[in-house]
Amino acid sequence: MRWVRYELNGKSGVGLVEGDRIVEVEAMSFDVAPRRTGRVVPLADATFLPPVVPPTFYAVGINYLQHVRNAVARGMATKAPTQPDVGYRANNALIGAGAPIVIPEGASGKVQFEGELVVVIGKKAKHVSRDDALSCIFGYTIGNDVSERSWQKSDRTFWRAKNTDTFKPMGPWIETDVDLDALVTTVHLNGSKVSRFRTNDMIFGIAEYISTMTRYLTLYPGDVIWMGTDDPTLDMVAGDTVEVAIEGIGALRNPVV
Amino acid sequence: MRWVRYELNGKSGVGLVEGDRIVEVEAMSFDVAPRRTGRVVPLADATFLPPVVPPTFYAVGINYLQHVRNAVARGMATKAPTQPDVGYRANNALIGAGAPIVIPEGASGKVQFEGELVVVIGKKAKHVSRDDALSCIFGYTIGNDVSERSWQKSDRTFWRAKNTDTFKPMGPWIETDVDLDALVTTVHLNGSKVSRFRTNDMIFGIAEYISTMTRYLTLYPGDVIWMGTDDPTLDMVAGDTVEVAIEGIGALRNPVV
Repeated sequence: MRWVRYELNGKSGVGLVEGDRIVEVEAMSFDVAPRRTGRVVPLADATFLPPVVPPTFYAVGINYLQHVRNAVARGMATKAPTQPDVGYRANNALIGAGAPIVIPEGASGKVQFEGELVVVIGKKAKHVSRDDALSCIFGYTIGNDVSERSWQKSDRTFWRAKNTDTFKPMGPWIETDVDLDALVTTVHLNGSKVSRFRTNDMIFGIAEYISTMTRYLTLYPGDVIWMGTDDPTLDMVAGDTVEVAIEGIGALRNPVV
Repeated sequence: MRWVRYELNGKSGVGLVEGDRIVEVEAMSFDVAPRRTGRVVPLADATFLPPVVPPTFYAVGINYLQHVRNAVARGMATKAPTQPDVGYRANNALIGAGAPIVIPEGASGKVQFEGELVVVIGKKAKHVSRDDALSCIFGYTIGNDVSERSWQKSDRTFWRAKNTDTFKPMGPWIETDVDLDALVTTVHLNGSKVSRFRTNDMIFGIAEYISTMTRYLTLYPGDVIWMGTDDPTLDMVAGDTVEVAIEGIGALRNPVV
């Protein structure tokens, strides 16, 4: 199933994507069957919202080998991670597919995009084994982890480097039926392919992250974990369009203004 | 007004504290008058919940001069902050007043507490001037920023050092009528006073933080900003009770197990 949150004529809704239509349902339900309202909306008419607003917004950061090598070369990291530490991003920065990424006043010009797989949690989970970890996942979506690199170096935290409004496009929907090992992430800038990598070739896999995290913390339905990107990460400027596609999930396309 | 979220007989509610009673209201309303349900609960019978679950959970970190000096001495910081950068904490870690702080398996024994003023946002806010910044505040509550110091040094991020389940006691309620300059924070460990400081003697004040943050990000009703602590920060062990009190707001007391 493909779960979507959307807006049409100033009204927001939740639905399931079926072909070129959205079949509206009463609410996003992680554990019971969705109840249809009877309303059907053409997919082309809807404005996408972020498919979920998470209670907690986790992000893995460095999780692909080539990305580590290049981060070291850029002075943004000193070595490959030795354990699956997780970081945070902020809900204010979320936008849906199609919404503009706004480069703010005062940005250095070094604003970059990164295509990421996003895990959406479906069950309350604590002390989950690696073997059971994938069973608490509701589905997967796509994220574009936009960063302002000069602020990432100058500030004590990632607050404006990573979490300026509109810096976290996510969507277009949550796909619940996914074969992780078959996924390939492809990133296009203005229609030209700039990156392609096997999505599941991670330093620490999803099951390892969930198992390690839940030794200390409780995951809740709707929590998201952004799983990191492989390189290259490139600059973008106003007028560009960035697309992050993952075969089997969909394509997240956003203009830059 | 004092806004509280509570649980009684397995049912949660929102209310206003009036003397030794909670007068239940329909919902927490940031911009309209609360509507009473007619139910009244003795304050002593209720279990406190965190008074708000924020869309985004901000934390200032280092914001008092003595804390900087001691953080430098401990190797946790290198210098005083030169600009009001803000960090993040996570909702999974929130507990209410009275709930136990659980020191997890594998912790080093170096688990510390810090008393903080918490700002609760009441209005959607972007590009707010310093002069207008305080007008978007709904009220204030109290936080205890629990940290496991060995993980804070060893991990790439603060995920388990700061955000292990139960590491963020907050409450007991949100006080909307506060004279900032009159506030004094007092911290007690097992009934003995261990810290006392003027709450508003910050390196960067609340108005400066809100003004700087909203140049880049939108604050939403219910967002919280934890404003940092002054030293000393001390160890606690199972069996201890920690109380953070701010005159004019209330007292946040939690046992350690």
